[in-house]
Amino acid sequence: MARKGDQPVKLSKELFLGLIPQHILDRGLIVLDETLIKPIKRLFEQRKLPKEGWSDDTIRLLLKVLSAIDTDKDPKAARIGEREARITSPLVSELAAGFNHGVGRSGVLIDAQPKAAGASLMYQIANRLAEDVLKKFGIENIKGAYVIPLATGMSIALVLKVARDLTGGRDVVYPRIDHKSPLNAISLVDLKPKIIPCKLDGDALVSDPSNVESAINGQTAAILTTTTFFPPRQTDDVIAISKIAKEKEIPHIINNAYGVQSPKIMNMIRSAIFKGRVDAIIQSTDKNFLCPVGGSVIAGTDEEFLRRVAHSYAGRATAAPVVQFLAAILSLGENRYRELIQQQQEYYNLLKDQLGEIAEKHGERLLKVDSSIAIAMTITKPRIAHEIGAKLYTSRVTGPRGLPKQDSTFGTCYDEYPTQYLTINAAIGVEETDIRTTVKRLDELLKKTPLS
Amino acid sequence: MARKGDQPVKLSKELFLGLIPQHILDRGLIVLDETLIKPIKRLFEQRKLPKEGWSDDTIRLLLKVLSAIDTDKDPKAARIGEREARITSPLVSELAAGFNHGVGRSGVLIDAQPKAAGASLMYQIANRLAEDVLKKFGIENIKGAYVIPLATGMSIALVLKVARDLTGGRDVVYPRIDHKSPLNAISLVDLKPKIIPCKLDGDALVSDPSNVESAINGQTAAILTTTTFFPPRQTDDVIAISKIAKEKEIPHIINNAYGVQSPKIMNMIRSAIFKGRVDAIIQSTDKNFLCPVGGSVIAGTDEEFLRRVAHSYAGRATAAPVVQFLAAILSLGENRYRELIQQQQEYYNLLKDQLGEIAEKHGERLLKVDSSIAIAMTITKPRIAHEIGAKLYTSRVTGPRGLPKQDSTFGTCYDEYPTQYLTINAAIGVEETDIRTTVKRLDELLKKTPLS
Amino acid sequence: MARKGDQPVKLSKELFLGLIPQHILDRGLIVLDETLIKPIKRLFEQRKLPKEGWSDDTIRLLLKVLSAIDTDKDPKAARIGEREARITSPLVSELAAGFNHGVGRSGVLIDAQPKAAGASLMYQIANRLAEDVLKKFGIENIKGAYVIPLATGMSIALVLKVARDLTGGRDVVYPRIDHKSPLNAISLVDLKPKIIPCKLDGDALVSDPSNVESAINGQTAAILTTTTFFPPRQTDDVIAISKIAKEKEIPHIINNAYGVQSPKIMNMIRSAIFKGRVDAIIQSTDKNFLCPVGGSVIAGTDEEFLRRVAHSYAGRATAAPVVQFLAAILSLGENRYRELIQQQQEYYNLLKDQLGEIAEKHGERLLKVDSSIAIAMTITKPRIAHEIGAKLYTSRVTGPRGLPKQDSTFGTCYDEYPTQYLTINAAIGVEETDIRTTVKRLDELLKKTPLS
Amino acid sequence: MARKGDQPVKLSKELFLGLIPQHILDRGLIVLDETLIKPIKRLFEQRKLPKEGWSDDTIRLLLKVLSAIDTDKDPKAARIGEREARITSPLVSELAAGFNHGVGRSGVLIDAQPKAAGASLMYQIANRLAEDVLKKFGIENIKGAYVIPLATGMSIALVLKVARDLTGGRDVVYPRIDHKSPLNAISLVDLKPKIIPCKLDGDALVSDPSNVESAINGQTAAILTTTTFFPPRQTDDVIAISKIAKEKEIPHIINNAYGVQSPKIMNMIRSAIFKGRVDAIIQSTDKNFLCPVGGSVIAGTDEEFLRRVAHSYAGRATAAPVVQFLAAILSLGENRYRELIQQQQEYYNLLKDQLGEIAEKHGERLLKVDSSIAIAMTITKPRIAHEIGAKLYTSRVTGPRGLPKQDSTFGTCYDEYPTQYLTINAAIGVEETDIRTTVKRLDELLKKTPLS
Repeated sequence: MARKGDQPVKLSKELFLGLIPQHILDRGLIVLDETLIKPIKRLFEQRKLPKEGWSDDTIRLLLKVLSAIDTDKDPKAARIGEREARITSPLVSELAAGFNHGVGRSGVLIDAQPKAAGASLMYQIANRLAEDVLKKFGIENIKGAYVIPLATGMSIALVLKVARDLTGGRDVVYPRIDHKSPLNAISLVDLKPKIIPCKLDGDALVSDPSNVESAINGQTAAILTTTTFFPPRQTDDVIAISKIAKEKEIPHIINNAYGVQSPKIMNMIRSAIFKGRVDAIIQSTDKNFLCPVGGSVIAGTDEEFLRRVAHSYAGRATAAPVVQFLAAILSLGENRYRELIQQQQEYYNLLKDQLGEIAEKHGERLLKVDSSIAIAMTITKPRIAHEIGAKLYTSRVTGPRGLPKQDSTFGTCYDEYPTQYLTINAAIGVEETDIRTTVKRLDELLKKTPLS
Repeated sequence: MARKGDQPVKLSKELFLGLIPQHILDRGLIVLDETLIKPIKRLFEQRKLPKEGWSDDTIRLLLKVLSAIDTDKDPKAARIGEREARITSPLVSELAAGFNHGVGRSGVLIDAQPKAAGASLMYQIANRLAEDVLKKFGIENIKGAYVIPLATGMSIALVLKVARDLTGGRDVVYPRIDHKSPLNAISLVDLKPKIIPCKLDGDALVSDPSNVESAINGQTAAILTTTTFFPPRQTDDVIAISKIAKEKEIPHIINNAYGVQSPKIMNMIRSAIFKGRVDAIIQSTDKNFLCPVGGSVIAGTDEEFLRRVAHSYAGRATAAPVVQFLAAILSLGENRYRELIQQQQEYYNLLKDQLGEIAEKHGERLLKVDSSIAIAMTITKPRIAHEIGAKLYTSRVTGPRGLPKQDSTFGTCYDEYPTQYLTINAAIGVEETDIRTTVKRLDELLKKTPLS
Repeated sequence: MARKGDQPVKLSKELFLGLIPQHILDRGLIVLDETLIKPIKRLFEQRKLPKEGWSDDTIRLLLKVLSAIDTDKDPKAARIGEREARITSPLVSELAAGFNHGVGRSGVLIDAQPKAAGASLMYQIANRLAEDVLKKFGIENIKGAYVIPLATGMSIALVLKVARDLTGGRDVVYPRIDHKSPLNAISLVDLKPKIIPCKLDGDALVSDPSNVESAINGQTAAILTTTTFFPPRQTDDVIAISKIAKEKEIPHIINNAYGVQSPKIMNMIRSAIFKGRVDAIIQSTDKNFLCPVGGSVIAGTDEEFLRRVAHSYAGRATAAPVVQFLAAILSLGENRYRELIQQQQEYYNLLKDQLGEIAEKHGERLLKVDSSIAIAMTITKPRIAHEIGAKLYTSRVTGPRGLPKQDSTFGTCYDEYPTQYLTINAAIGVEETDIRTTVKRLDELLKKTPLS
Repeated sequence: MARKGDQPVKLSKELFLGLIPQHILDRGLIVLDETLIKPIKRLFEQRKLPKEGWSDDTIRLLLKVLSAIDTDKDPKAARIGEREARITSPLVSELAAGFNHGVGRSGVLIDAQPKAAGASLMYQIANRLAEDVLKKFGIENIKGAYVIPLATGMSIALVLKVARDLTGGRDVVYPRIDHKSPLNAISLVDLKPKIIPCKLDGDALVSDPSNVESAINGQTAAILTTTTFFPPRQTDDVIAISKIAKEKEIPHIINNAYGVQSPKIMNMIRSAIFKGRVDAIIQSTDKNFLCPVGGSVIAGTDEEFLRRVAHSYAGRATAAPVVQFLAAILSLGENRYRELIQQQQEYYNLLKDQLGEIAEKHGERLLKVDSSIAIAMTITKPRIAHEIGAKLYTSRVTGPRGLPKQDSTFGTCYDEYPTQYLTINAAIGVEETDIRTTVKRLDELLKKTPLS
């Protein structure tokens, strides 16, 4: 069989000669080259996040070309395995962007699949971009990153599994975060959370590194810290804790669910890596990179640790979250992402101002908590925080949480927080209208239950 | 400005090195090359109908690459004309397959548009394929063909305009066809139809070339003949009439609306070109090439005549019918189209057998008419042919026509045809189930009105 | 057969009971109703341009539902006509948005097609919106409008055909516009242009209504006036000419190619209709409504005249330009369209300021011409206007025209215009960056050829 | 706020009145109702696998309507959470079929998400169909089933986690299957495989239930059996083992990766459920239902067990594998799926005949193993099985495996299998051409290395 793969795949100008006038053809080929061909070539040459975001058409072409390489697209292939990416209808293939073989191999998530050269290339590129975007936006001292086709919680499980195997420990030292996913993750890999209670520091709920330190013992499999949660819970002091982790030789995992959008948090993580021990940092793709729910990026400081994570995954996986991340990050590009991060900060400040005003107007106040994404405001009885949250939902405001719930303090990260409150986010991608509408509707709601 | 257009647009293997193992990459690039790149290169090199039909993905890639060349896709272009293909939303562009500038220039339909190199290339290729498919399927003695973004009727008008200008004549000698579109076409370009009545030859309605000959005079702008109509109307004797046209030096235009599917008709036209005069042959894209309604192919035997047709069109035009034709013909390929033509003949025979049987059963008979596409069956009173057609429509059988209508004989091509009848088509693309269902429903209908 | 059509097509809430909690379901159904169902219902109830533009998803749903009604989508239909919208592949159908039967009937463009209930509904709605948008944006005294699947030039031909038949005249009185399409249109329907030369009025080229009046005689089939052309050619005085048309009883057709974007022009046309005679007003869909090239809207003041136009079209037609217009106008909505019109005016002023500056800097000046869309600037020798236009094209500025060309004055609308000039447009949809880039590149070009 | 959700969402016939003639409208609405509306209504009413497969258009409409319900589609929503399904571009949303919020809630995979009513409905329906298809195709005695957005291996991990928690055991009794995914799954949830070696029974490798029984002890968390693997490994005797599981009160999990296509295997599982204990049965969506890799269906016989599985998942998840399964199964319908199962059996027999012939011709023989999907053929030295597999791959035959590999017996499920062999699958969806091409290429390869 002739080795067609040896030839460059090219469309040279000669092909089009004689069909249209030369100057029009030249003009057209410049556009073709600049908008479609060059960006794709540059992506594969540099394997970095492009400065300028791509158009949907360019991304579509990339995905089409790559998915066309998988064996299920080969009309001359004889396909006689038990898994051959046979698909019932064009729509079903379209729903997978043509990556019908998924990604990964039975034993190792990131390995190339012989039947899916295209999906394998796609995945490698996605991983390189994931690594690059994290490096460019604050943690240049990581050693690698993988896009995992699992949301943050399940990815935490994968990483904890590796920590468990490395240490033989049974416990995860975990400064209290009232979020079910990480708790499920801990339980999935048969570990126990050793919850470190929060302390009240003014309005803020903070974890104390010295409590983390004293909780560590021979049974400790890992420390799991958290950078992003609803105020009044503040970011864990990952720098101090990473120093402890280094000293105690305990794996340290940072749940950085939506921290990429915060230069301050990213900066803290970078310092933590420099000054102490951080084994893995896990970030949500949807919450940071404006793509659909379902993926996460696991970054690491040690290639061997990352390799073990890839070996922990049981089997192959859906390509969808990887493709979605890749498309989202290419669509953004470095410049647009930087802009969005700046806008987030501006909208955060807007939210703070606006919310402060109506808090004062209605006898409430903003909690004093160090956060760059979300804000909490007191809710005073007879107002019921949880009801206000529910009413906002039915008036088409999504996202705010009223806490504590009447039947439980889970969610507050504290057993007896002194006041009810409502949290509101100005996360990346929020728009001014979201903030103004929310504040307006909240204003109306508060008016209905005056304090006296 | 650097001349990027001089470089071949290529994706060489080196780009992907180090991302996945070499043997997987090689295997993948073979598929890429064979399924996507090669067909497109070969199309531009050969500019002929491919043997094998293309997948939708390959066609999509071709259209995407071509439409990406138009200036409206150039992010660096400054666009300051009155027409810049600015589009309100991605969907709207998608509805034009990205060819937002349409095709053609103000003065000449087939000329390249400076703002639309891609659409211009696309149109040229469509024209080459149109010419090639007609040559391959029977009329290899044409000199060129254009895909016109107008259905058959309007294309007849364009051609008649040229004939009118060439001759200075006012009349179109037109063997009677009871079809409004060509009559509208004649009228649009300010000509008068000079209708040649049909003769009854057994069951068949035929036109007599000698009547055509005697109708020609100094006012004759063109002869318009027809190859395909509902039986009992038979194909005009285009060979005899082309000889008359040659002798009398009168432009001869053949309305070959759905004749490409019939090797017999195509053969007749070829002979007519050899033996006499044929200026233009017009065929529907939808009826012959299984694409949506809206386009036609004008073929000619003289390049100057065709050039004049292209100059007759007033302005630029929608690219859609051209794109649809191009996609349809690439999707078919030569082999599949040949198969479809063979199947048509088989299904025609099946229809004839089936219809013959139920005709006999219900006291009717098939009209003896020379046709290879449609069949007519007598309808005897008290059965009302027109009502049977209407009832078939409401019982979800589309296509049959019951004639004559109660209030008019228009449609029969004859003033007093001796019987009512129903016509049914087994045109290209018909499936066995269409025929069997139709016959079954017709059987039920006839049962309800027994003859005695 | 049961009459399913009698039942309302509904998805009631009960269908979803028990699947998800009630309050989430309620919340979801509100969105479904408001974003998808309501807009579609309201569109059919009111048959007017919506205030707010639709999302692509809503438009897509409308098109999907309508195209699903055509008989070629009916899996139970037996299809045995010669035209049954059989399609080779899903892509080909997609390229027609599923409207594979096109629009219109053999004899009348706007009539419903029995095989295509959906396309027929789609076309009717498009026509109602076309009428409504023209009424809302200035000419509320029209009596109807049709979207024609032909660009402006060919639509002018259709209208002239009707005028020709009504009057029996042979000439079109035509204040000089150097544009090939309308001249082709006149010729297509076998009329002769009787060109009324322009007069020089300062810098402006204007037509003199009294010359129009004196050109009218027994051979006059129509007067064709023009509202939009490149400066220094100014808008014809359609009010004065409409009065003449009324008095002389001559059909008056206004080529309003891209005039909808100009409130001033629309106002003039409204007055012309009130005060005189206007039979038809023709506007481009692409130049006014940001949709792909290929359609136009013919508006009329007399229903009978419009009906005749619809009868002039020979056959059925591609649905694509109609669908594209419908999608574009729904995407815009009244509010966004109004905004775009305001922006156009702002950008026109910006262009004027910017161009004025660099004209002065390089020893040129802006021509004093009354226009709200385009601007012309002198080009003085040794600079060659036509070369500057060509150089702008190769430096990726599309649209500007340098006139007169070296070998012809066609394009200037005048035989010996006293200066060379360059025209630049700030047409609807232009963006600030287009203007600034153009001015910058022009500045660089002029610098290279200083005047002294 | 008015409760719009209380109104049925309906498009009644009245909406369209006056636009097109009544009989055409009636005809069209029948098609609309039958092809789009009825199937969707029936799906929600019955919540069962439809008899007839759906067209892609109908599926697309369903997905569009459901995804339109999620809050991120609500233009009036104010979105101020940390996760609001904000998406960078239309393409990115399209890659998720609009289900940008994914599925599930933080604590429970199958719970409705308040922000995603549409995704929640979609997921519920997918689960109902998954349950129904399994019941219809053989295991009507299950109590429920969930579509899990994880491939088989990871789903095994979820189920084992539940078994581990229920029993407190540490070991998984596992009749030897040399497949990395289940081993990774066992390890992920911190269990140890207790491998039960296979016995050689003629050519076949079988597991002995009595060895399973004797391996069970106080540390046993679960028994994991396997129905589908490459011959010569035969299906585990799940009936006998389920009886042991019942007697010993040990959770029994069946890895039924691609067994749904085999009526014989499904029948065995049904009997196992009746006669013994089966806690969960896990099947791949891609290998059974012709959809892309990435999902699985976990069926159970106890609702509480299933509920626990849903609680084991850590967080929300990508909707993609669920959507892909839903689309695939709707596209198939019951009838087509039954046909495919019958065809699989026919092609299996064809493969057996063909392969038998060339085996004999080249001095090899088929291994006598009870299987209805795959076949193994001896490979005798000097032929090297593993090389033959590799050569088939490069000659574009995907799927065959040559074993044992030169450096390991992993894959054979046996330490010293007496012969090398090649396995070939005739799995569901295989086509005749795949088999004939494979056999032909294998014939050529064997010819090159004659045995003597």
